[in-house]
Amino acid sequence: MTLDVLLSALGAQVVEPGETANPAYLKDWASRCPVTPLAVVRPRSVEEVSRTLEICNEHGLPVVPQGGRTGLAGGAQPLADGVVICLDRMNGAPEIDGQGRVARVQAGVTLEQVQQAAEAQGLLFAVDIGSRGSCEIGGMIATNAGGMRAFRYGMMRQNVLGLEAVLPDGTVVSAMNGFLKNNTGYDLKQLFIGAEGTLGVVTGAVLRLHPAQPARVTALLRVENLARAQQVLDALSLRLPGLSICEVMWPDYYYFASGFRGFDPLPDSADGLTLLIEAEGQEEAGLRGDLQTALEYLFEKELVLDGAISQSLRQTEEFWALRSANEGLNQAFSSIVNFDISLHPEIGDAVVARLNDRLAAASHQLRCLWLGHLGDMNLHLGVVRSSGSEIGPECEALIVDAVITTVLDAGGTISAEHGIGAFKVDYVPKLRSEAEQALSRTLRRALDPKGIMNPGRLF
Amino acid sequence: MTLDVLLSALGAQVVEPGETANPAYLKDWASRCPVTPLAVVRPRSVEEVSRTLEICNEHGLPVVPQGGRTGLAGGAQPLADGVVICLDRMNGAPEIDGQGRVARVQAGVTLEQVQQAAEAQGLLFAVDIGSRGSCEIGGMIATNAGGMRAFRYGMMRQNVLGLEAVLPDGTVVSAMNGFLKNNTGYDLKQLFIGAEGTLGVVTGAVLRLHPAQPARVTALLRVENLARAQQVLDALSLRLPGLSICEVMWPDYYYFASGFRGFDPLPDSADGLTLLIEAEGQEEAGLRGDLQTALEYLFEKELVLDGAISQSLRQTEEFWALRSANEGLNQAFSSIVNFDISLHPEIGDAVVARLNDRLAAASHQLRCLWLGHLGDMNLHLGVVRSSGSEIGPECEALIVDAVITTVLDAGGTISAEHGIGAFKVDYVPKLRSEAEQALSRTLRRALDPKGIMNPGRLF
Ligand SMILES: Cc1cc2nc3c(=O)[nH]c(=O)nc-3n(C[C@H](O)[C@H](O)[C@H](O)COP(=O)(O)OP(=O)(O)OC[C@H]3O[C@@H](n4cnc5c(N)ncnc54)[C@H](O)[C@@H]3O)c2cc1C
Ligand SMILES: Cc1cc2nc3c(=O)[nH]c(=O)nc-3n(C[C@H](O)[C@H](O)[C@H](O)COP(=O)(O)OP(=O)(O)OC[C@H]3O[C@@H](n4cnc5c(N)ncnc54)[C@H](O)[C@@H]3O)c2cc1C
Repeated sequence: MTLDVLLSALGAQVVEPGETANPAYLKDWASRCPVTPLAVVRPRSVEEVSRTLEICNEHGLPVVPQGGRTGLAGGAQPLADGVVICLDRMNGAPEIDGQGRVARVQAGVTLEQVQQAAEAQGLLFAVDIGSRGSCEIGGMIATNAGGMRAFRYGMMRQNVLGLEAVLPDGTVVSAMNGFLKNNTGYDLKQLFIGAEGTLGVVTGAVLRLHPAQPARVTALLRVENLARAQQVLDALSLRLPGLSICEVMWPDYYYFASGFRGFDPLPDSADGLTLLIEAEGQEEAGLRGDLQTALEYLFEKELVLDGAISQSLRQTEEFWALRSANEGLNQAFSSIVNFDISLHPEIGDAVVARLNDRLAAASHQLRCLWLGHLGDMNLHLGVVRSSGSEIGPECEALIVDAVITTVLDAGGTISAEHGIGAFKVDYVPKLRSEAEQALSRTLRRALDPKGIMNPGRLF
Repeated sequence: MTLDVLLSALGAQVVEPGETANPAYLKDWASRCPVTPLAVVRPRSVEEVSRTLEICNEHGLPVVPQGGRTGLAGGAQPLADGVVICLDRMNGAPEIDGQGRVARVQAGVTLEQVQQAAEAQGLLFAVDIGSRGSCEIGGMIATNAGGMRAFRYGMMRQNVLGLEAVLPDGTVVSAMNGFLKNNTGYDLKQLFIGAEGTLGVVTGAVLRLHPAQPARVTALLRVENLARAQQVLDALSLRLPGLSICEVMWPDYYYFASGFRGFDPLPDSADGLTLLIEAEGQEEAGLRGDLQTALEYLFEKELVLDGAISQSLRQTEEFWALRSANEGLNQAFSSIVNFDISLHPEIGDAVVARLNDRLAAASHQLRCLWLGHLGDMNLHLGVVRSSGSEIGPECEALIVDAVITTVLDAGGTISAEHGIGAFKVDYVPKLRSEAEQALSRTLRRALDPKGIMNPGRLF
């Protein structure tokens, strides 16, 4: 019935019944099985988004916004009794304002599109995540995506200056501010950033850009443990102002990655953590010199065990391939249980060791593959079976319980950047106080009184 | 009556009737006349804040939160029929977590206290504003204070990781997150940042700290106009990664400042804008060398007309004294009409020229003293009479109208960092769309259904 209303209001170009929709829309990256919604709506304009929401709101129909469906918390997975509203057609070329250092974009453009458009004008859009080819600005805003450069440039929240969103009742709220400073009342865009599609549909944004640095140098370092890695980072951030990447890989992950890629740039040094670092600057020679000097300092202070500065583009690609080898985990292991945590730096080594021990004690086949964004102590853990075989539901439950209780007991968080989505809803009461939850409900009710937006997700 | 309830609940130590209260609490920095409220409440704990709000809410009594009362929009000025709740007693020593790089503070600590506590551990709290000795963290959060380092480190919003606030009904919402990444639902702290005391009382915060750089070099540069200044900044930000200050002063302001201070470090060069720049780094010699090289580049490209690198601490203080001479404007002129605007860089020169002309045409005695934070194109304008004499109400109205219409016509904003407060409420409909205003009202009603928090302020 509502399907007919949607169809007659928006046309068959925009509204596709769930049964006949392209299967790509029926599943997001991390969810297991496709779900067929009543309809998949793919609006071409903010007016069509508004009309869609208005109709769904009138009929009390659940709405699931979709960006690139690369989310890792199941938040863009369709609901069987609801409508998917996918922004992928709202992807006009980003408008770059070189003087004002901003990009004006529609929500459906991919991260890569924005990065390339900025680069073409000597500018940088600083948020970078592995899913760049598919994830969309709307989805990145809705999840407050973080990634590797967040310790330097911030997450999406710090890189969105203005925003356009459609409220559940169809009202278009345009707050396309382009200024770094504009204190003129509530900063409404903040509501929609990180709200995982529960307060409205993001349709456009003004993104902050930075001047791009043409030169870059990359290195791999081996350090004893996380505490040392932290000291290395501290020393580097003071000595290498252009430092923009500092990723950390634990031995089990590194063995996997170097095996998977078929090379190991640090074969001689003993066990330890591997850091991938990168600095940006005006010209390569100077930058390389600064990095060299900084590394000499690190060796002299015995903070690093081994290290290699990339000498060629090819070698740089190799260093990076080790870091991105996590994308190959799905090939190598038939199941992986993934976690995304933040920890206080002081207890990082202890928590990692505790978890490795706890899971090994549960089953000697379990292996913890740790890697992370060191600058914000955001660690990603993938638990696999060393045989590569499937992890059964019971064992998975055990792993999840072990990781989550250990991290929470240590005062950490179990969603640093991937969000709560559908998967982590049950843990919210452990993460947020009663007063925070009550205030969150108040907000949600105020903006979405009928509760149509992504129900059951976030909380 | 309510006064008695407050007194009996909180005691005479905490609740002072307005008539006998210290006059300091009856006026904020920019408001003209003192206003006597029913009571001045100075709680010593979050529980006392909660109890106060609970009582005021029950009795529908307006509440005005006060920090250091240095706000420039009149938002902390008492209301005659209301209660002032001043946080100045909640000023325990900041707790610095060196490893986690955060400061945990009560809302009543001054900016200077936080800066000093951080510095003592080799860390930097990066927001810096001229009122540092008096303004308090709670007030800075409520106004989303910006200042000189915002182009590099962000405003308060980007430097607050966690927050504790008391809602109008007395509920304490503690969201004292200390992580850079923690995507676990709505980021509730954002509600209170920049809300100017209309959604609750901020009682505590977790602030982000950065590693402090021990060395610093300072320079004054003379450039032809704002467009050139922008090119200079672009060149410097690529060549001097430690660049942390870039303030701009227009000729009329500079003449005043050098006259007021009694020295002029750039006496020989022709008319133009003066930039105060500063870069931070690990050691002074290297930094000085980098600055020297960068300046050579600027001269070679004919981007600057003149320049001087400070050679001593004394000279650095002199350079800075020119920038802070604006604090002496009140002595030199019996009235000043102040503005705080953001403009798109491309039109900066044109708007400044247009306004200078427009006001000169209105009265040849009017002089525009412009200075600003170049990195975010946040300009401060003080309009004075060259004779130093009073600006009458009619003339003031004319000035305000000229500046505001010119800036809005040019697509600028008339409150970059000082906020709306009581003074700019009438302009909100020109700054925000109907949908934004409606959503703002929805939010305010949801959190403060009885409308007790700073009524009449913000909107
Ligand atoms: C290989 C890989 C690497 C990754 N690396 C990172 C990383 O480093 N850091 C990181 O933070 N994440 C990472 N992710 C996760 C993911 O890419 C991000 O969460 C991304 O921001 C999701 O964008 P999307 O467009 O795919 O959103 P989707 O998955 O489509 O949606 C995500 C959520 O946002 C909502 N939503 C989507 N679009 C809108 C809209 N327009 N308006 C309102 N709500 C909307 C959805 O309902 C859902 O709840 C990675 C994922 C993969 C597959
Ligand atoms: C010399 C000078 C230089 C300045 N330079 C700058 C500058 O560069 N950049 C800039 O942004 N500002 C500047 N200001 C303005 C001012 O210092 C800032 O707005 C500052 O953040 C106000 O802090 P405060 O504690 O004095 O707040 P107050 O003036 O006491 O209050 C300001 C507003 O916040 C509310 N409020 C105060 N405390 C709380 C609380 N705990 N909870 C909820 N609401 C609260 C008040 O109700 C009021 O609406 C300057 C002011 C002066 C006098």
